[in-house]
Order: sequence, then C-alpha cells, then structure tokens
Amino acid sequence: MPVNYQTPAPEALHPVAGIRLGVAAAGIRKKDRKDLTVIAIDAGASVAGVFTQNRFCAAPVQVCRAHLAEHGNVDIRALVINTGIANAGTGESGMAASNTTCAELAALLQVDASQILPFSTGVILEPLPVDTLVAGLPAALADLAPNHWHAAAHAIMTTDTIAKAASRQLSINGKNVTITGISKGAGMIKPNMATMLGFMGTDAGIAPALLAKTLKDIADESFNAITVDGDTSTNDSFVAIATGQSGVQFSTGQEAGWSELSAALLAVAQELAQAIVRDGEGATKFMTIAVSGGQTREECRAVGYAIGHSPLVKTAFFASDPNLGRILAAIGYAGIADLDVDNIRVWLASQSGETLVAEQGGRAAAYTEDQGAAIMADAEITIRIDLARGAAQATVWTCDFSYDYVKINADYRS
Amino acid sequence: MPVNYQTPAPEALHPVAGIRLGVAAAGIRKKDRKDLTVIAIDAGASVAGVFTQNRFCAAPVQVCRAHLAEHGNVDIRALVINTGIANAGTGESGMAASNTTCAELAALLQVDASQILPFSTGVILEPLPVDTLVAGLPAALADLAPNHWHAAAHAIMTTDTIAKAASRQLSINGKNVTITGISKGAGMIKPNMATMLGFMGTDAGIAPALLAKTLKDIADESFNAITVDGDTSTNDSFVAIATGQSGVQFSTGQEAGWSELSAALLAVAQELAQAIVRDGEGATKFMTIAVSGGQTREECRAVGYAIGHSPLVKTAFFASDPNLGRILAAIGYAGIADLDVDNIRVWLASQSGETLVAEQGGRAAAYTEDQGAAIMADAEITIRIDLARGAAQATVWTCDFSYDYVKINADYRS
Repeated sequence: MPVNYQTPAPEALHPVAGIRLGVAAAGIRKKDRKDLTVIAIDAGASVAGVFTQNRFCAAPVQVCRAHLAEHGNVDIRALVINTGIANAGTGESGMAASNTTCAELAALLQVDASQILPFSTGVILEPLPVDTLVAGLPAALADLAPNHWHAAAHAIMTTDTIAKAASRQLSINGKNVTITGISKGAGMIKPNMATMLGFMGTDAGIAPALLAKTLKDIADESFNAITVDGDTSTNDSFVAIATGQSGVQFSTGQEAGWSELSAALLAVAQELAQAIVRDGEGATKFMTIAVSGGQTREECRAVGYAIGHSPLVKTAFFASDPNLGRILAAIGYAGIADLDVDNIRVWLASQSGETLVAEQGGRAAAYTEDQGAAIMADAEITIRIDLARGAAQATVWTCDFSYDYVKINADYRS
Repeated sequence: MPVNYQTPAPEALHPVAGIRLGVAAAGIRKKDRKDLTVIAIDAGASVAGVFTQNRFCAAPVQVCRAHLAEHGNVDIRALVINTGIANAGTGESGMAASNTTCAELAALLQVDASQILPFSTGVILEPLPVDTLVAGLPAALADLAPNHWHAAAHAIMTTDTIAKAASRQLSINGKNVTITGISKGAGMIKPNMATMLGFMGTDAGIAPALLAKTLKDIADESFNAITVDGDTSTNDSFVAIATGQSGVQFSTGQEAGWSELSAALLAVAQELAQAIVRDGEGATKFMTIAVSGGQTREECRAVGYAIGHSPLVKTAFFASDPNLGRILAAIGYAGIADLDVDNIRVWLASQSGETLVAEQGGRAAAYTEDQGAAIMADAEITIRIDLARGAAQATVWTCDFSYDYVKINADYRS
C-alpha cells in the first residue's frame, strides 16, 4: 500500500491545451491490459527530456536523445509509451524496433519519424514485439482526447500498485496556466520491470533552450532526488512539453511570472517523484532526508543518498527502531574526506514533533530513545542533518525497507 | 546458517610463537559471556593495522592509529578487545575510556600505555563501562596461553552465528612458519552491533615498513573486497603481528621466500574475510564477482561493488532467479562514463558449470534461463565479467539478500 498517496480523480487532472492522450490494449506482454499510450502534441510546442545515466541505456532512450537533438527541442509531435517490455539490453534489433515504432506512428500522424519520441518499460533483455505494438497504434490514436491523463497514468503502470498523477492551475500575468503530469515506477529499477517514467505538460509557452535548462534543474530536485533501492534503471526518462496555447510565453526566464511558473513546474514534478517513493516496493514509511550546512550541493546529496541507500537505516525505519548509530555511520562513509563529525547535528521530525538526536560526535544529551521511537512510528519522517561546514543544502526522499521488498523482488519472476 | 563454513577445530589453529591469548567474562553488556580478549605480544614484533575510513570512526580506532604512529609499527605489546559496546559516537568520554583501558592494561603488563592497541565492537552511541572492563583484565591475563586462538575467536563474536579463524603452516627457507588469524563480523556494520575485526599473527619476522605496506595490499584483496550490505562500520580494524620467532626474517620483500609468505598471509586473510560474508546476515548464497578487462583496478572494483551492493541483484540470487537485466543495469550505473556496453561479456559459473549469459549489449544467443537457474541454485556462484577495455581486474565477495536480512536488522533491538 502506498504511503499517504491516492491517485487524483480524473476531473482533478486538468487538460493541457495542445496535448491529447490515447491508450490501447495492444497485447505486448499480457492480453486485455492497457499497455500502449500515445501523447499527441500540437505543432509549436517545446519538448525537453532528461534520461538515465545508465551506460546500459535502453534503445528508446537513445532514440529520444537523437530525435530531441535533431530538432533542438521543438517540432516533436508525439510520444509513444509501451509497457511490458523495456527494450533494454536488446542490441541492434532493439534500436530497429524503436525506430520502426517511430516510423509507423509518424506515418499515421503524417509527420516525420524523427518527430516521435519512444518510451518502453518492462522486462529487460526480452525483444520488443514491434508488430504487436504497431498493430495497437490505430486504437490508441482513436482514443486521443485532452482529458485522458488519468487513463494514461494507468496505462503506463507496470508493477506500480497505484497510478501517479498531479495537476495544478495558476494565474500568470492575468492568464490561466495549467500544468499536468503523470509518472510511473515503484523502484529506481523495477524487479526486471525496469524504469521510472515522468511526463509533464503545460500550456505555458517556454522557449526550447529555457525549457531544457529548467527541466534539468527541476529533475535534480525531483526525480533525481528520490531513491527506493539505489538501482538506476536503464530506461529512466522525464519529459516536459510546453505547448504555449495559454498565451503565456517565456523566452529567457527573466520575464514576470517565470518564478511562479517554474515553482509550479517543480511542485508538480516533486509530487510525481514523491509518489514513486510512496509507492516504493514494500514501503511503509516515507522519509525526507534534508541535509544542510554542506560546502557543496553534491556533498549534501552524497550524505542524503548514503542514508537513503543504507539497508540498515531503511530496515531500522521499517521497525520504528531509533537506531541512530546507523544514520551516523552512513554520514561517516558518505565520502566527505575532511568531515568534522564533532560539528554535525541530526534531528528526527514528524507530526509528533522534532528532536535533536545527535551532536558533538555522539548522542544529544537530552535525547531519549522513547522520543525517537515515537517519531519513527509515524508514516512520514524527516531526518534533518546540519553538516556545519557551509551554506549548501539538498533533499533526498526515500522509503523504508521491509519484508515485502524482499518478497516482491525475490518472488517476482519465480 | 553460514554458507559452507565451519570453525576450524582448536588443534587446527597453530600457536604462533611470541603471541599468547586470554579471554574473560567481564560483564560489559551481558553476564557470563566471554567479552574481553587480550592478545599479548613478546617484545620485538612488528605490528601494523588498517582501519575504517568512516569519518565517525570509533575512539579505539583513533587510539590505535596514534599508538601505531608513535611507535612506527614496533614495540606494541598487547591488543585488548571488548565486545558489547563499540565505544563509537561517544565523543571525549569515549576517548578517555579507551585511554584508560590502555593505561590499566599497561600497568598490569609493566609497559607503556602507548604500547597497547584497544578494539571495541558492539552497540554504537552507548558509553563503554570502562571500570567493568578494567576489572576483567586480570582474569584475561591469567588465561593467556599460545593455544587460545579458538577461544579468542569465540570471545570477539557479537551477533556472528559462528566463530571465524584460519591457520596454516609452511616451510620457508628450511624453517617452519606459522600464520594464524581470527575475525568477526556478519555485516560490514552489524545492526548497531558494529564492526568487522580481523587479527592475524605470524612467527615470521617482517620489518615494520614492509609489514605495513603488505598489510594494506592484503586488506585490499581480502577485508576490503567483501560486502554484505554496503555499510562501512565505525570500528573496522585489521591488524597483523609478525613476531620473528620462527627465525625467518624479511626486511625488503626482495628476499627468497617472501612471495610464498605473502601469498600465505593473503590466503589466510581472504579465508577470514570470506568467512564474514559466509556468515553474512541472512546469507544463503556466497557470490564471487570477478571483474576483468578494466582500464584500472578501481573501475573493476566499482563494477564489482555496484553488483555486490544492488538489493535487486542480491534478492534475485536469493530466489535463484536468473534476472540478468539486474546485473547489466548495475554494471551500467557503476560510474564508468565511457563504458562501451557492446563489448561486455558476463558469465555465471558454479559447480554446475559455466555459461556465457550476456554479450554485445544483450543476452548471449545460446544462453537459456534454465542454464542460469541451474547455476544460481548452487550455494557458491561466480559472476564473471569482462569489460574488454584494459588489463586490470578485481574481485569482490558478497552474499545474497534474504527475508532473514530484514528480520535480523528490523527485529534486532525491538
């Protein structure tokens, strides 16, 4: 069960002018399951993407990168997403399958194949049944509608237990602007159902270069700030579409209203990213690890990830066991060579309150384990760390590590 | 239950001339449990140590480093090891406790406090009851005997399920040389019972500088090449003692017989280190990850550890599920920026045989999942990887990730 998360109702996911979504059951791996999604984009939109850094990146990721580069983040007219097969670790035939997918959809839409971005998620090392996928495209196109975000959020799920979506509207420079997005994933890599995917659309107009830069910044504080198990997928992709059909236009990021829009884009991306952690495999707790006082953002992230990846920390949170030595140990091995542990302070916080747990290299004088246990019994917990050596900060979101994580990952294919 | 490991019988652990061991039940954390060990060393021995890189290193580790530096790896006359309390995250009072331990033992042995090396393992963040420890020292000294390695291996255990020791004798330059060692640990960090410890003695004579350098090299290929859960303890320590009482002496490492001796030292260290993995928390499989064809040893180790730390790989091995995409994904995110995945080959091997599972960026043509499943059903499995970009290689040993790992770590203190 996800930690404090429900899919928004269909009517809460506002349509984005210039974007239509359609889904179909193509039968790629299972019959009678919606497994194919097309997101059609009107001409004139900016489209940017950030992708996995995994060297074993999937064929569709390579095709996406090439198509976005070819068009300089404009002229992309459709996204096509299949579940069931990740088309990763598939070599040259995998590239051919992704290219065929683009060519066939382009022919149906009367655009060029390079104007299509393909995405796949599912089993690694298995061939993508491209004929089956292509045969499903007409049904997906027949289903295209502006208000199908909810259906698309469901159609991109693999072993997710819940569909993930977020939407908000705001007034910018006197005009209504909408942002709506969907995501999927229940681990950084699923139990051979690989991949985290995120798609976010807005009817604000954002110049291609500005969108590309902004998307990278937003990803760093949303999808690149979560971890379930430390495994980076071969297919991770996060794409933003800015159609401009609201009449609000940004070119440089210096204009009035940009800070409001970029904050709203970040908020939607964080909601989508956090939903993945809340639905993390076996998760029973949602943990925010907020690290401040670093010399650089990178070292703050290193500390956050050391804690967020530690199986010992994660199992302690599962058990609501205030086993703080595990947190201190993780800080200590995070790789900051000249870290002075005597200055570090660590707090635990939840709706039950906040307590200083460690200072001066050891347990805080006033801290009691009962305080720690009470906070850790809540489902949403913040671990706050002050490294006391600079002004940088970073936040990482993660979940706990339960029996069900092992069960899900050990039993998945057996 | 440990994977294919039994403690050697007492008579199989050969005494090392110049080293005597004594144990006692001091009652540091539990009554009537042997929790205090003294290893007394005759004058004239070389002693070297390697210690945790964790910035939250424990007080005894800091004292060990200072004492070894002060004496240039000679003149150390005793090691004192307590279980129950790690004396880590204990600030200034922790340093005082370690120094008091050294001073009191030194007084009993009529040596200087700086000639004592202290080691602690157990609960982090709790104060060491130094008076209780000191009160137990006379009993440990009364127990000193050359043939008490077996008893010492048991007395340094915390949540280990089995005592770990190794011993061998060889003839070097016509003289008999003995190497005997003990180790403890069942995770890189225990569920707040922190620490891996290793102690190895030989009656070969090894000059202090040569011993220090050799110990570092040996540690890199033994205790620094294992992982259970990726967590680095605050107290990890590995110490070698060379008494010289066999009459065999090495000063430069260029002498005849040195290659045989250093190979035997490495073999004993690897046996001790691998015993920790075999007794890893919840372990049901022992995995050797052998990476070759790297440009540097570091990148080979990075690949080995990415695989060895991946919860997805480790749960797949627990389930004997040939989920090879997880291995490829871990190779891909190991941090080699210019890795060409098309050249990588991956094999699985066990007593059931060896099979090429991946090549050219995907599944090997002749590979079948039945082959993979048959190999993974064995308790000892080798994952062999050729990165095909250089001549460097490295090996990492790890275990699988089972329900019992979560159970042990979630339930330990509750």
